[in-house]
Amino acid sequence: MADCELCSEAKRASAFWQNDLFYLIDASCEATPNFVRLVLKRHVPEMSDLPREERVRVWDALNAIEEAMREVLSPAKVNLAEFGNMVPHLHWHLIARYRDDMYFPESTWSNAVRGLPAATAERLARNPALFKRIAEKLA
Amino acid sequence: MADCELCSEAKRASAFWQNDLFYLIDASCEATPNFVRLVLKRHVPEMSDLPREERVRVWDALNAIEEAMREVLSPAKVNLAEFGNMVPHLHWHLIARYRDDMYFPESTWSNAVRGLPAATAERLARNPALFKRIAEKLA
Repeated sequence: MADCELCSEAKRASAFWQNDLFYLIDASCEATPNFVRLVLKRHVPEMSDLPREERVRVWDALNAIEEAMREVLSPAKVNLAEFGNMVPHLHWHLIARYRDDMYFPESTWSNAVRGLPAATAERLARNPALFKRIAEKLA
Repeated sequence: MADCELCSEAKRASAFWQNDLFYLIDASCEATPNFVRLVLKRHVPEMSDLPREERVRVWDALNAIEEAMREVLSPAKVNLAEFGNMVPHLHWHLIARYRDDMYFPESTWSNAVRGLPAATAERLARNPALFKRIAEKLA
């Protein structure tokens, strides 16, 4: 769809993994150093707009990403969210959470409750291993 | 698990629907007038702690609730989230969003961007019809 950021070729080109149904991008930053976004290729707003077979493929992929995060990062918790209020193009946020991260135990959409932890650079440096493990699981 | 709010009998007793795997509670308030929480009966923190058969049952239920929200409420968007940072007992938040709600287009975990809309009481009043439709879909 024209004017949709998630439909853009530039966004797709930044994917670290993709198939016919969805692509995965690295949404990490210092505040949320291990953050993967799964974006549907088609422009639909809701999970219930998909046929069940495609929904199950998305759910299985979310589970594979969650498992990879647990294996590679040992986070305190994995957070999953599908909002799409700003960009009504189906996408999922998967965020590894740590007890000392800027928002814990609040959501990463809440106000920060502390500063950046010392482990930030080390956590960012684990992303190549995370993305490799995700690709292995989705292969 | 002792001391887990979501394991408590009182919380389960407040469910408007339940099966052997999960229960559903009305988490609505004025700020988020159409808010359903799906809570697993067992005390596990992550979706990936479930065998796939149970994950699929949870996913299909989330989809049924989303469909019911769209049918009964015609929201601008349905928001889904699974955090569990405060209470590491698997639960999903499903929230019908409206363009004039207190947080739109931000998440409902963000700071409010406006006051309560005039339609709040009317939206709260639709919950009995919503819960009835959810029960029909899950039957």
